[in-house]
Amino acid sequence: MIKKLLIANRGEIAVRIIRACRELGIESVAVYSEADKEALHVQLADEAYCIGPTASKDSYLNVTNIISVANKTGCDAIHPGYGFLAENADFAELCRDCNIIFVGPTPEAISKMGTKDVARETMREAGVPIVPGSQGIINTIDEAIELANRIEYPVIIKATAGGGGKGIRVARDENELVKGINITQQEAMTAFGNPGVYIEKYIEDFRHVEIQVLADNYGNVIHLGERDCSIQRRLQKLVEETPSPALDGEIREEMGTAAKKAAKAVDYTGAGTVEFIYDYRNRKFYFMEMNTRIQVEHPVTEMVTGTDLIKEQILVASGEKLSLTQEDVEFNGWSIECRVNAENPEKNFMPSPGKINMYLAPGGLGVRVDSAAYPGYAIPPYYDSMIAKVITYGKTREEAIARMKRALSEFVIEGVHTTIPFHLKLLSHEKFINGEFNTKFLELHDVMKSV
Amino acid sequence: MIKKLLIANRGEIAVRIIRACRELGIESVAVYSEADKEALHVQLADEAYCIGPTASKDSYLNVTNIISVANKTGCDAIHPGYGFLAENADFAELCRDCNIIFVGPTPEAISKMGTKDVARETMREAGVPIVPGSQGIINTIDEAIELANRIEYPVIIKATAGGGGKGIRVARDENELVKGINITQQEAMTAFGNPGVYIEKYIEDFRHVEIQVLADNYGNVIHLGERDCSIQRRLQKLVEETPSPALDGEIREEMGTAAKKAAKAVDYTGAGTVEFIYDYRNRKFYFMEMNTRIQVEHPVTEMVTGTDLIKEQILVASGEKLSLTQEDVEFNGWSIECRVNAENPEKNFMPSPGKINMYLAPGGLGVRVDSAAYPGYAIPPYYDSMIAKVITYGKTREEAIARMKRALSEFVIEGVHTTIPFHLKLLSHEKFINGEFNTKFLELHDVMKSV
Repeated sequence: MIKKLLIANRGEIAVRIIRACRELGIESVAVYSEADKEALHVQLADEAYCIGPTASKDSYLNVTNIISVANKTGCDAIHPGYGFLAENADFAELCRDCNIIFVGPTPEAISKMGTKDVARETMREAGVPIVPGSQGIINTIDEAIELANRIEYPVIIKATAGGGGKGIRVARDENELVKGINITQQEAMTAFGNPGVYIEKYIEDFRHVEIQVLADNYGNVIHLGERDCSIQRRLQKLVEETPSPALDGEIREEMGTAAKKAAKAVDYTGAGTVEFIYDYRNRKFYFMEMNTRIQVEHPVTEMVTGTDLIKEQILVASGEKLSLTQEDVEFNGWSIECRVNAENPEKNFMPSPGKINMYLAPGGLGVRVDSAAYPGYAIPPYYDSMIAKVITYGKTREEAIARMKRALSEFVIEGVHTTIPFHLKLLSHEKFINGEFNTKFLELHDVMKSV
Repeated sequence: MIKKLLIANRGEIAVRIIRACRELGIESVAVYSEADKEALHVQLADEAYCIGPTASKDSYLNVTNIISVANKTGCDAIHPGYGFLAENADFAELCRDCNIIFVGPTPEAISKMGTKDVARETMREAGVPIVPGSQGIINTIDEAIELANRIEYPVIIKATAGGGGKGIRVARDENELVKGINITQQEAMTAFGNPGVYIEKYIEDFRHVEIQVLADNYGNVIHLGERDCSIQRRLQKLVEETPSPALDGEIREEMGTAAKKAAKAVDYTGAGTVEFIYDYRNRKFYFMEMNTRIQVEHPVTEMVTGTDLIKEQILVASGEKLSLTQEDVEFNGWSIECRVNAENPEKNFMPSPGKINMYLAPGGLGVRVDSAAYPGYAIPPYYDSMIAKVITYGKTREEAIARMKRALSEFVIEGVHTTIPFHLKLLSHEKFINGEFNTKFLELHDVMKSV
């Protein structure tokens, strides 16, 4: 069993991991940047060490200093949290080389899932549904037309070498396809020196539905149901819930099975999330990507299953078997998470760092708060803007929503702007209440202007 | 459905009720004494009115002013919480006369259960086990000897007119019995002018185990399992948990059935608790009393059943049926509550009122805090000393305990002494960990001096 664990992260997830350590009787070591010396994770851990200046690259990404603290303090394991080094295969490998347990999957699994084309190919071979499209690049226009007719319009043309939104074009008919391929090839040649393009079916309206998986070193792989994370702003998730209002038992079962196949295909170990594009109009889902780490939204799964995912991660990394089998997994009630950020929703979500003068988190039945804030804490402008995750539980979705509105309305955070007013508007929006939303919801609806 | 509810209470239970109102869409009206104008329940309610000076008799027991605020503000219901007017049959009757819904049972049910000898007789008739003893007073010594031999020693001799620990004597054999009756009769004559004594079996070592019941106006009565409240100091509960480490399925079933019988015997409605003396050595239980109101320790039941007891109270009072049947009640995991009081456990639990300079409640998975405290709040010396109830949930008792230790150890309350150090010691005490304790535990073990 792991005896002493270094948490290579900050903020609420560092606090979350320290809490799990304390409950398991594991000593915790925090690391922090110069900007974070007053941070809560520093105060809560058994020991804490500064690992460098404010910039992430000099501190939370400073592999040398982190490994050095782990060695100096006699840590036998490192938990990377999410972000920073969590999906860095080289770091996982370095830990292995240094005889330190990396709380996460193998470098090989991280690497396979982190490379988009390799992941897509691995999933295809494993029988996990992927978005229909060309296998490799398009060689002739005729081949593209034939493929597009088969997978049906609209399709999306992507430059193999593209990225960051460049070299992507949607085609809704043959005419647009022919033009689109020519233009994209020319653009890609100019921009990336590689004219290769490929085609995928373009799924216009979809929900982001992901499956939580857990796997150990003994071949046991289970799933703990889905999370619907379709409420996003510029690809950033703002609200997550489980179960998904859009899934029925059949699709849930199929998606869970597919997620386990995905995990098995890369000999996955620990906690991971297989994200899917859910084409709800056609009741079809496709592999999007796998996050080979714990996720921000993991608490909603904990609320409905009663399983502590961070503890499972640590136990698996310690060489233990999973504490439960697929048959043991039970789902009770409904859970929603709202990310409360230090941003001004009235001003296009402009970041609002600064000192929290007064802070009082909501409490009572069915309310969980994961946060690293406290009265007098100054939110530094250098990292992410999250103040707290508010998670509610209810017997029904209606109760979970009512409880969230209650909890957010009593949350006192003075000194900075927060996204609470946004969440309160969203939770009262008819379409949200009816569960009718996809990933475009916030593009299509100005929630702040809704009644 | 109730539209506007006055909460005739203060502190965490007032906050608890306001939260339930908000989740149900019911308007809430707080009342407060002059000492409580900065209290959290005043800030959280939709409206708040001062009902008198600091002394409880002038404010929270000021029936005239409370009814007057209810009428003035158009409240159609009053929730009494616990303590104060909660078990006052006259107040419940006054509400009825004023056409205001009293959120609780009928005045008749309160009255029957509030009068010890009537309650004992009612339970005997209903077939609920009561402590074996004489029916009415003892007329002759021979009768007493015969009875004592039948119910077996030790027995307890109680003056009918006694109370407050006076006129009570334990007899362990016939010699002590004969002497004891004589002395108690003389004492009772002198002290109360009434020499009548009766005899009950004296159960030396018992656990306090109680059953939560819910009943509606349509004859539906269910129970939601037990709570073990054996950790008491001078009859005040300090720690409560469910399930009880001392009960097996058979006793649990029998006790649940007995509690439902007790409730039915007085046509009970709403939430109530039937308290039992559990003679664990002989696997026998006896009716102690029924609390005809919500209890401080109700949250542990909510944690393992997922049922919101305050909402059920309000729904029943509104004339609705219970939201669940006995078959719907499911028990998951384990829950413990620790009462964190403003008292100094190093100095014989001396009250420690005053200003809380810094306040940060614990959070994260499986931790619930019910409190009316906040940073800068001054705990008045006039009422009870509770700062917060910390409730944890775990899949197992071990996990619930580990989580409680973790939660309490991160709870920041500066400016007053608290009972947190006591709880941390207790939670690490071998006998507590093993579930081996009865109501004498804190008398027999100096927890503060344990390692």
